[in-house]
Amino acid sequence: MRFLVIGGDAAGMSAASKAKRNQADMNVTVLETTTDVSYSACGMPYNIADHGRIMDDLVVRKAEVFRAKQGIDLLLGHRATSVDPIGHAVSVAANDGNRKEFPYDKLLVATGARPIRPAIPGIDLPGVHVLKSLEDGRKIKHDLTSREVKTAIIVGMGYIGLEMAEALHARGISVHMVDLLPRVLPWLPQDMADIVSKELTDHGLELTFGAKLTAIQESHGRLRAVLDHGEIDADLALIAIGVIPNSELAAAAGLALGPKNAIAVDRTMKTSHPDIYAAGDCADAFHIVTGKRVWIPLALRANRAGWAVADNVAGAEVKLPGIAGTAVFKVMGLEVARTGLSIEEAQEAGFDAVDTVIKSRSRAHSHPGNQTIHVNLAADKATGRLLGGSMVGREGAAHRIDALAVALHAGMTVDQFFQCDFAYAPPFGPVWDPLLTAANQLLKNL
Amino acid sequence: MRFLVIGGDAAGMSAASKAKRNQADMNVTVLETTTDVSYSACGMPYNIADHGRIMDDLVVRKAEVFRAKQGIDLLLGHRATSVDPIGHAVSVAANDGNRKEFPYDKLLVATGARPIRPAIPGIDLPGVHVLKSLEDGRKIKHDLTSREVKTAIIVGMGYIGLEMAEALHARGISVHMVDLLPRVLPWLPQDMADIVSKELTDHGLELTFGAKLTAIQESHGRLRAVLDHGEIDADLALIAIGVIPNSELAAAAGLALGPKNAIAVDRTMKTSHPDIYAAGDCADAFHIVTGKRVWIPLALRANRAGWAVADNVAGAEVKLPGIAGTAVFKVMGLEVARTGLSIEEAQEAGFDAVDTVIKSRSRAHSHPGNQTIHVNLAADKATGRLLGGSMVGREGAAHRIDALAVALHAGMTVDQFFQCDFAYAPPFGPVWDPLLTAANQLLKNL
Repeated sequence: MRFLVIGGDAAGMSAASKAKRNQADMNVTVLETTTDVSYSACGMPYNIADHGRIMDDLVVRKAEVFRAKQGIDLLLGHRATSVDPIGHAVSVAANDGNRKEFPYDKLLVATGARPIRPAIPGIDLPGVHVLKSLEDGRKIKHDLTSREVKTAIIVGMGYIGLEMAEALHARGISVHMVDLLPRVLPWLPQDMADIVSKELTDHGLELTFGAKLTAIQESHGRLRAVLDHGEIDADLALIAIGVIPNSELAAAAGLALGPKNAIAVDRTMKTSHPDIYAAGDCADAFHIVTGKRVWIPLALRANRAGWAVADNVAGAEVKLPGIAGTAVFKVMGLEVARTGLSIEEAQEAGFDAVDTVIKSRSRAHSHPGNQTIHVNLAADKATGRLLGGSMVGREGAAHRIDALAVALHAGMTVDQFFQCDFAYAPPFGPVWDPLLTAANQLLKNL
Repeated sequence: MRFLVIGGDAAGMSAASKAKRNQADMNVTVLETTTDVSYSACGMPYNIADHGRIMDDLVVRKAEVFRAKQGIDLLLGHRATSVDPIGHAVSVAANDGNRKEFPYDKLLVATGARPIRPAIPGIDLPGVHVLKSLEDGRKIKHDLTSREVKTAIIVGMGYIGLEMAEALHARGISVHMVDLLPRVLPWLPQDMADIVSKELTDHGLELTFGAKLTAIQESHGRLRAVLDHGEIDADLALIAIGVIPNSELAAAAGLALGPKNAIAVDRTMKTSHPDIYAAGDCADAFHIVTGKRVWIPLALRANRAGWAVADNVAGAEVKLPGIAGTAVFKVMGLEVARTGLSIEEAQEAGFDAVDTVIKSRSRAHSHPGNQTIHVNLAADKATGRLLGGSMVGREGAAHRIDALAVALHAGMTVDQFFQCDFAYAPPFGPVWDPLLTAANQLLKNL
């Protein structure tokens, strides 16, 4: 059995490693365009924040280990240029100029995603960055240490934009954030989004909403971001307006695409061709709440899907139920978390959705150190089923969201969730956990 | 409708308040033996730890508020002496010496639990305390402030014993803990219990296991705890060897009792008599995993059961599914949490149970501030169903346990739980959450 993997990051290396653990004699080859494999991409903002750490601290397992200890034929600097599903072969351009063909019995396409770079003048100027690969991170870190960067503009206020805002702020850089939308995190209720905005401005960041970046110019050795209204000067720019799946190779091979042009896969991670799997940021998934295809590229899914592919290549039939889009991130002193559908997403998906926002506390009545926690919960009026929720708080939001994610996987109604026996102790929450208080409030709207 | 409540703490006052919210014209009377109602009992150790706070900070709502704003006829210093289920009346001895009869249409018995006081010589000596009521807390606090207390002995290493050990240690008191059992927290796997013991000894506490308290003596103005092997001198003693339900009144009225002599109730909180309900620490519950009656007196259930009684008295038929015994507490710098059954409890309940203990981290690979988290998960080999688990860690254990509690309520298998889409960000955990890593490990034992 020749198992060929295109892409050596989370999904690809998880699959390759597990394939060898499953069957030590399996012929496993990984083609990776860059020279980096198996690194903690999500750790990059925190690494960048700390000038005492080097980017390679984020490497979880080195290429030599995959080769020597795990027996994986890991080829760096090898870019797949085309896939022949009929001939079961992948054409490759190597960094040394050679072109090669790699035959396979089973293929995994784990080509990931890339940051969106708007086609505007100046996007390629020095000092203009994106952040997706370890190499992107190295470039930012090098830029921060090799010259004086006092001010930065971040275009885009999604997870990466917000985490990098914190990172640059931690390095003493004045950060100005810009977003096309009228406010931060559109899936959060307005009240909760306002808390996030306030946290940023309280730390001295400038925020400009409803503004479109139209060009970047060089101006006296600095950068000038030209917006549709106004201009912002900065020493460094980060474009963090989202990612798109690297699905061109798969599309050219005739594989079906799903939402946002991600590679369409079934619950076994199989593409439209029976011998080709896709996993990681390039592949779509079924949403646990809607049952529909969705593209939400996140790290846990990539790892999980990689494992499933390895098992399925070895003859199992592991089916992944799907994703809830559960995510958490830190914004300065805030924990922001979500899972499932927001009220707007639920309504778009056709649910007769209602929601509630409640304000509770992170610790018991009268316990010192109490912080406010806001919880948003959405449910389907027709069935009473929980659809999703979000939380914002200075403590206790990050891990609480998983209880809601489990409830979504179980298809629980709001009442079933409300009846769950949660833990209570004064240092960790009120008797009625904020999630239960939200569920109780939501019951009144059903 | 005359709704009479015996007991003015969590269950009783929750029921009384909600009954008035449900039907403002309902005649609601509460009989409370003491002069305290509606206080955060679980907050007492933290209050005692802080000499700057007074015990009454823990009162959530004052008697006057219940009377004036909520229209509840709240009678303090009124002790119910007997219940006549046929005649629908409760006999009461008031503190002023009067005896009265209170007729009712529906009765709630919410008489709570009391700490076990072993019948040994010296148990009533000054300086020997228990901790259950606010008055108990006041006595301890008064004792700590009115004389010099340098050393304390705590008999019993359950939640209260451990929380009070932290509280007294925080006040600079040398604490010696004694337990009959050979180790702390018998529902924790040995490795995890050892972490808790080490945390206590690392903070300078002395621990004596396998020792029985046989007497307490006065000795040169101090206390001497006489054990079956040896003696321990201390300025103050706390007996925290558990609680028993105050079910004598109910038993004398002919109501059926359940495990540990708690008052047996159905899922609507009704006792064996159709017009009498019981809720709170005096009543039993159905365990969500075994489906069997169990007595695990905890605060959330008391509040929840109180609400259910209020709704059912008003004509609803709210059925509570049951409890998972989810609990969390802080021991010095550790968070200790559990839900469902331990492996031993599962085996006792007749399951062909297997379990696993894994060691994971509270933050991502290479993220600063990483702490170890230990997770124990148990499952039924026959069905793959999750049965329970526990966690110990310096951060991230307290709130994670609720995800497992929800899974138990949903009756999830280990594999279903493993497939849940958990949140990930480097400051809050590894890509594979410790709970998922434990589930994956447990799958191998099934």
